[in-house]
Amino acid sequence: MTIGFETWAKDGAARRGRLTLAHGTIETPAFMPVGTAATVKAMRPESVAETGAEILLGNTYHLMLRPTAERIAELGGLHRFMNWNKPILTDSGGFQVMSLAGRRKLDKDGVTFQSHIDGSKHRLTPERSIEIQHLLGSDITMAFDECTPHPATHEQAADSMRLSMKWAARSKEAFTDRPGHTLFGIVQGSVYDDLRRESVEALTGIGFEGYAVGGLAVGEGQEEMFRVLEATTPHLPDDAPRYLMGVGKPGDLVGAVTRGIDMFDCVLPSRSGRTGQAQTRRGPVNLRNARHAADPRPLDADCACPACTGYSRAYLHHLQKADEILGPMLLTWHNLHYYQELMAGLRGAVEAGTLADFAAAFAEQQAAGDIPAL
Amino acid sequence: MTIGFETWAKDGAARRGRLTLAHGTIETPAFMPVGTAATVKAMRPESVAETGAEILLGNTYHLMLRPTAERIAELGGLHRFMNWNKPILTDSGGFQVMSLAGRRKLDKDGVTFQSHIDGSKHRLTPERSIEIQHLLGSDITMAFDECTPHPATHEQAADSMRLSMKWAARSKEAFTDRPGHTLFGIVQGSVYDDLRRESVEALTGIGFEGYAVGGLAVGEGQEEMFRVLEATTPHLPDDAPRYLMGVGKPGDLVGAVTRGIDMFDCVLPSRSGRTGQAQTRRGPVNLRNARHAADPRPLDADCACPACTGYSRAYLHHLQKADEILGPMLLTWHNLHYYQELMAGLRGAVEAGTLADFAAAFAEQQAAGDIPAL
Ligand SMILES: [Zn+2]
Ligand SMILES: [Zn+2]
Repeated sequence: MTIGFETWAKDGAARRGRLTLAHGTIETPAFMPVGTAATVKAMRPESVAETGAEILLGNTYHLMLRPTAERIAELGGLHRFMNWNKPILTDSGGFQVMSLAGRRKLDKDGVTFQSHIDGSKHRLTPERSIEIQHLLGSDITMAFDECTPHPATHEQAADSMRLSMKWAARSKEAFTDRPGHTLFGIVQGSVYDDLRRESVEALTGIGFEGYAVGGLAVGEGQEEMFRVLEATTPHLPDDAPRYLMGVGKPGDLVGAVTRGIDMFDCVLPSRSGRTGQAQTRRGPVNLRNARHAADPRPLDADCACPACTGYSRAYLHHLQKADEILGPMLLTWHNLHYYQELMAGLRGAVEAGTLADFAAAFAEQQAAGDIPAL
Repeated sequence: MTIGFETWAKDGAARRGRLTLAHGTIETPAFMPVGTAATVKAMRPESVAETGAEILLGNTYHLMLRPTAERIAELGGLHRFMNWNKPILTDSGGFQVMSLAGRRKLDKDGVTFQSHIDGSKHRLTPERSIEIQHLLGSDITMAFDECTPHPATHEQAADSMRLSMKWAARSKEAFTDRPGHTLFGIVQGSVYDDLRRESVEALTGIGFEGYAVGGLAVGEGQEEMFRVLEATTPHLPDDAPRYLMGVGKPGDLVGAVTRGIDMFDCVLPSRSGRTGQAQTRRGPVNLRNARHAADPRPLDADCACPACTGYSRAYLHHLQKADEILGPMLLTWHNLHYYQELMAGLRGAVEAGTLADFAAAFAEQQAAGDIPAL
């Protein structure tokens, strides 16, 4: 083991643990804010840390195009470049190539694509993805895979998953062991239990220190996602961290922790914070709505973030109407704070063996909705 | 006196002082960052205070249109609304009406204009401007005046100035005395020494606790501005603070302090910070420039701001190229930090009687320009 992962409490399938990496430790279950282009948008890294975040996600696709992995390596690596000294996980680039790049061509060796920034031609292979993540200095490198589109037939999903498993083996081969740095494999197989099972077996056969569940939150819906998790996580090694990629809404996090997931990433809290939407214990609140224009109350009276302790809803509404940068700054902070608080609540509940109560109270509060207008 | 102003050191015409207002004290000479729409753009108020700023400027024109002065008063005033508990100075709205509003009509009583936001019709008079500033809760209210356009003939300048002097008397009449709150008069008269002198006499005849010099930095050039200051400030009462409105570049501040000015406001540090331009002791630095793309050095190795202590020029360049919000956040912080550091340097030099040396060293460093590219 080049990294440490210990768990000391379970509640059903949920686990309370701690992951030790080159740049620090992470209490799990954990949520990773997304720092796409070497910045969590509208946040200083000190502020991200203040929300309680202990690890960030960086995007290989974005960084390889601008400013390039080689440039970041010359400048001392991604941690130093973006002034974040805690752990960083980088994705493999495959997902963004599929969703963002211009013309792209997949072959059995990798993918050739055009940059969405300037149309320039690039190629990603398992070896190149691992090399880029090495240049960035990621604590956790993700294996290069194809994120199977949804919906997919059983045959399509099987072909795609088997290609990803070959690429997983090549990723492992290409990865250079360094203390505190590790490589995670990614389970694919779409919504087919037999394929998920086959993928888990392929990955555990190769051997990784952590396992991600990929290809979910791509349109299948929460119920189906939870069903796939239930068919997948029990087969994953108990002593390795499990990461559900690209998830999700607050309710997704609660349900996935309950089903044995330890790590998450999602752009939702930061992205919605830039469009005036707050994520709160009482569900989403749209601060552009005129009902807030004269409301002297805080967004959430029980939240300790700067947006809630320093300002009225009326002010947050005003920032939205006036298109002021401070609007995204404060709402992103609140949303990330709320996500970290939710994760802390989940960790406490798993430890106390009260996760079912916690999940019920969470669902009840979310269903209650926002406080009534004045 | 409802406010306090003491000076205890002079160096030529320059003064070292302290202004005491309802929400705190201000070391002078002082620079006031501009918080147009109840926010210093891209900065949290805590961060503005960290740069050393002790007073902000708010814009009556913007706030009266959105969210309205009445709304802000209902919400507890501008300090509470924007979470800034130190002093606030508000302008009278006249300058923005002339520069930003749609169709506008000036008469001897005031000005009728259309909002640049939604075209709605509004009216500002001396009485209404003072009422709005009272609703906002400004520590320093500015008299309502017409900022004489440049260039203006002697006759145009005289007519405009005399109208402003009538409005100054009406502003004084309309102002409600409250401890720690005060009203400043504004000297007009364009570039004509006799008119500036007449304006000073009119204002001192009415009697104010502070005097602003308006109608400068409107295109007349630095040399002419300094000449007008030399013809104006000697006639202003020695025991009242003097505020040069809308100024300026770092060199303008040094020259105007030398000529007896105590207070400044300008959008330059915040506005230029949002377009990639840093203000530094070695002059302006454009971080969009490709020369910074691989430069591991800080923007200014001697600056203690977060942009300079946490990041390379390469990273700041990357934020500009990627159009990341963190770019304006960090550069605005640096620029405001630099302005406050410059003011602290000026205050120290006046106190030590070394202002001429300080100004010479400042000019030399600015002329030297940015460090050579790598
Ligand atoms: Zn909050
Ligand atoms: Zn700096």
